[in-house]
Amino acid sequence: MTYVARDIVETRRAVAEARTAGKTVGLVPTMGALHEGHLSLVRASAADCGYTVVSVFVNPTQFGPGEDLERYPRGLENDAKLAGDAGAELIFAPTTDTMYPAGYATYVEVERLTDGLCGARRPGHFRGVTTVVTKLFNICKPDAAYFGQKDAQQAVIIKRMVRDLDLDIEIRVLPTVREPDGLAMSSRNEYLSAEERLQATCLYRALQRAEELYAERVRSVGRIIAEMTAIVEAERDTRIDYISAVDAEELSPIEEITAPALVALAVFVGETRLIDNVVLG
Amino acid sequence: MTYVARDIVETRRAVAEARTAGKTVGLVPTMGALHEGHLSLVRASAADCGYTVVSVFVNPTQFGPGEDLERYPRGLENDAKLAGDAGAELIFAPTTDTMYPAGYATYVEVERLTDGLCGARRPGHFRGVTTVVTKLFNICKPDAAYFGQKDAQQAVIIKRMVRDLDLDIEIRVLPTVREPDGLAMSSRNEYLSAEERLQATCLYRALQRAEELYAERVRSVGRIIAEMTAIVEAERDTRIDYISAVDAEELSPIEEITAPALVALAVFVGETRLIDNVVLG
Repeated sequence: MTYVARDIVETRRAVAEARTAGKTVGLVPTMGALHEGHLSLVRASAADCGYTVVSVFVNPTQFGPGEDLERYPRGLENDAKLAGDAGAELIFAPTTDTMYPAGYATYVEVERLTDGLCGARRPGHFRGVTTVVTKLFNICKPDAAYFGQKDAQQAVIIKRMVRDLDLDIEIRVLPTVREPDGLAMSSRNEYLSAEERLQATCLYRALQRAEELYAERVRSVGRIIAEMTAIVEAERDTRIDYISAVDAEELSPIEEITAPALVALAVFVGETRLIDNVVLG
Repeated sequence: MTYVARDIVETRRAVAEARTAGKTVGLVPTMGALHEGHLSLVRASAADCGYTVVSVFVNPTQFGPGEDLERYPRGLENDAKLAGDAGAELIFAPTTDTMYPAGYATYVEVERLTDGLCGARRPGHFRGVTTVVTKLFNICKPDAAYFGQKDAQQAVIIKRMVRDLDLDIEIRVLPTVREPDGLAMSSRNEYLSAEERLQATCLYRALQRAEELYAERVRSVGRIIAEMTAIVEAERDTRIDYISAVDAEELSPIEEITAPALVALAVFVGETRLIDNVVLG
């Protein structure tokens, strides 16, 4: 049985013991509701590192008003079993009071990279992410931490934060894991009705079309986004939050693809907001 | 001769070696121009820890427009000698490009505690301080870090930041070191003309008067500040930036002293801005 630590001192102690035993430490930060995407990160950490910590914390500071904080799926027992089976030694599952005690006042903010894409649509979201990830890094002191490419903007922001704050941690970003029909794995997929679930493949189909156009030497972002928009809008219950192409490193808007570009979209399918992306070039 | 490291990798390596040798690590963050105040911190670290790092970095992000960034006194060779004589093993003196490389985007911010006192008068100052201190902590990974009570608000903010971000570092705050006539040691004292230097004792005299009033059971902040104001205004070349009394932990404004209170002032003497404080109760 994988050990579940609820408190920080206990977690520090377990990690320190592993380190004393000469093991390297990998961290997989999650909000629980683990799926194959998360588990691919746990397996990668277990392959690379002698000791893998999976944090499970639904972080309130990264949810905006009216978002799905209350509704977000929770199931620690199942998560602990899945993470353990995938190779985790320790689950760190703190309470909100442990992470944000009375008088909490400190935030980590990455500028510019957080301005567009999901940052523009979810004000304060990435500030919550970078703050909690800094805390998790300081608690677990990993050698490496694992993130999914599905949250592409998050991965770019965390890499920049680690560089800027001189954190001595390697950030490893692993490919998006997909359902057989292409839908990116997400804990939020369980919100979808059967009808919505079918329509939700439009994100992946739109990204595939972007890849096709790029392969056909189309470089105009306007053209690519127009075709993606048409694919998403063909579904009855979809509402586009954004479809954008940005420089893959700086996340700045582009009009032509001349260097690696992140093509990303966020779409409401019914009430459920889904995201996905692909890198072109 | 104390070793001066200009780069981060070199500094990490030196600290890691000390740690492998079983030594604890103390850090004294400074902007150089070392005086007895700084040296008291270095001596304390050298007494407590097996290996003491003194950082010397005039941090641009904590200076506002029109402040004295360009003019701030610099003299690394002398600082290295003074720090070494006081017991430091390593001086970490990075360049600005090393600390803030191209594309730098990440800031650490403490809310509320930064709103009043110097925070209100120097917007962005504490954001610069907490950011650079986080970086120095991540580079040097000290067990303990040493700060002076002269910068009382800074000390409170850094303690809160360390708690909030789960940094595993003990913050030790040492008493203000004063000249024989009571003037708090400060690198900025060297800006003062002979005439201004005489007038500059008014900060300490005002604080002494606050202590007397408190000893006489005066608890009214209005009364205490009025008497302090009169003492400072009696000098020809002074201009009050602020005189405030706040809760010593939360730094929130108070009208009566019922719990430990930080009485702090900032005064321009000629063009030079000086600060000082005392804790009552």
